[in-house]
Amino acid sequence: MHAITIPEPGGPDALVWAQVPDPRPGPGEVVIDVTASAVNRADLLQRQGHYPPPPGAPAYPGLECSGVISAVGPDVVDHRVGDEVCALLAGGGYAEKVAVPAGQLLPVPAGVSLADAAALPEVACTVWSNVVQLAGLSKGETLLVHGGGSGIGTFAIQFAAALGATVITTARAGKHDRLRELGAHHTIDYTSTDFVAETNRIAGGADVILDIIGGAYLGRNIDALAVGGRLAIIGFQGGRKAEFNLGALMAKRGSVHATTLRARPVEEKAEIVRGVHQLVWPLVGAGTVRPIVDRRVPMAQAAEAHRIVESSDHLGKVLLTTA
Amino acid sequence: MHAITIPEPGGPDALVWAQVPDPRPGPGEVVIDVTASAVNRADLLQRQGHYPPPPGAPAYPGLECSGVISAVGPDVVDHRVGDEVCALLAGGGYAEKVAVPAGQLLPVPAGVSLADAAALPEVACTVWSNVVQLAGLSKGETLLVHGGGSGIGTFAIQFAAALGATVITTARAGKHDRLRELGAHHTIDYTSTDFVAETNRIAGGADVILDIIGGAYLGRNIDALAVGGRLAIIGFQGGRKAEFNLGALMAKRGSVHATTLRARPVEEKAEIVRGVHQLVWPLVGAGTVRPIVDRRVPMAQAAEAHRIVESSDHLGKVLLTTA
Repeated sequence: MHAITIPEPGGPDALVWAQVPDPRPGPGEVVIDVTASAVNRADLLQRQGHYPPPPGAPAYPGLECSGVISAVGPDVVDHRVGDEVCALLAGGGYAEKVAVPAGQLLPVPAGVSLADAAALPEVACTVWSNVVQLAGLSKGETLLVHGGGSGIGTFAIQFAAALGATVITTARAGKHDRLRELGAHHTIDYTSTDFVAETNRIAGGADVILDIIGGAYLGRNIDALAVGGRLAIIGFQGGRKAEFNLGALMAKRGSVHATTLRARPVEEKAEIVRGVHQLVWPLVGAGTVRPIVDRRVPMAQAAEAHRIVESSDHLGKVLLTTA
Repeated sequence: MHAITIPEPGGPDALVWAQVPDPRPGPGEVVIDVTASAVNRADLLQRQGHYPPPPGAPAYPGLECSGVISAVGPDVVDHRVGDEVCALLAGGGYAEKVAVPAGQLLPVPAGVSLADAAALPEVACTVWSNVVQLAGLSKGETLLVHGGGSGIGTFAIQFAAALGATVITTARAGKHDRLRELGAHHTIDYTSTDFVAETNRIAGGADVILDIIGGAYLGRNIDALAVGGRLAIIGFQGGRKAEFNLGALMAKRGSVHATTLRARPVEEKAEIVRGVHQLVWPLVGAGTVRPIVDRRVPMAQAAEAHRIVESSDHLGKVLLTTA
């Protein structure tokens, strides 16, 4: 098969489409013939040499995919060759085939094309595990989503609005109309407006904040929390080093969580995938939450897809297709 | 009645036993004729002018007491004049009488003297709300308690051991034997041993850390967490300013919580008191968890009691008695 390899870490052109050995399914695994994968920011870090695959994971980038099952390993009972699926991966989505534990498979939701289904697993699992499982966002509460135009952002806006939460999001002004259509109740242009003052003015602070900035926003995110608020950090676009005042966190009786999906054990991933299947998939099947696809790029041209995501001019996910 | 007043914030001698007006019970409140109160570190801060009582709370220090109900306000149905009780207070325990919302009353547990019962409400509510309600410590997990010789520490050790957790505690070496008798499985002399290395060696990290140090320990506490660990900060003996690496928190998929009991709304306090009554009081009644009283000091000599707590030479609680 072909896969995107990274002979030397570096810029987008470090991604090289090359012939590599086919994967075989281990016990409890299936092999998917990949129809599409999607770009996540973590892939950019892996390309730069900063985010190596966890032990046992495929060497190639790609944290999600969709496609057709072409082989089934021992101890897999619920899946057959020919099934159309999408999957959460620990790596290896940028390839024509990938082996994955069966617990990380999801059916293609009703009304979603096989290729577009590749845009769902990583964002659905990340948003559900952070916003619901960890931070316990409930109806009537307020969610602040940073980077509303990202894959994570566009999914979180739709999902939280469907839960009955008030959704505030930060994004460049040019994306605001589209984010309101997706369900955002309030949009903040972070380049011109202080999101702390605005969140406090709108809602008296956010009950949950889903953050991709990290260090540079930590103190301000705490200032934007409501009493009892929960800050879930899933990215470090603003660095890892953080300085803040614990007194401010105590005054909010708040909490700061930092998580990642990729490094979790297979059993934890399967538990998250089960939760997503049970609680998120019905919303996708009903059309309440949709995959937001910015564009499709042939997988062999993954470098171009990375340039688009690095520019942050896109809205939603950039797909990589094999056909 | 008499109460400890603070005419001018300052050292222990700022505490002045003076004649003040009697409190009256408002709707939903009772008045307790105080048998004993107990010293908490927050009282030392209030004496220094750093921790003013929340709006509506009595002006005098004292976050807990025991005694006999002497008056019952409107809308109180479950309590009568003459009942022996102990209570979680927003302030005013350093007095001969105090008014308190009925939801913050607890019965005197079986086998505990009326005076010693004053040593329980604040530590039981703080430990239960942080260690169980917030951090979800469960059987088989590991708890690291900083300052094991404190009122909070001595209670947390007994309570977590009773839950079936492995308990590690930091304290000066002279207190170790006593803390092991209370149920600590491992004691660390923080003056000579690195608690991070030791906690990782013993248990591969702590699932829950109950911390009273704050800023000075934040980075090291995160390093001492197990994967999925929860850090609950309830004090700032090492300052409020904190610098740390969010990447380390993410590698642990950990969380940092900072809470305080005193500022919570009456309804939240009542919920915590109900939880304590239901889940902690049976352990106290069975003798599994005991109030640890370092000594009793007449309330009029509260200054002396504060000097003892400031020295950190005590073990458990210092009581203030009215008789």
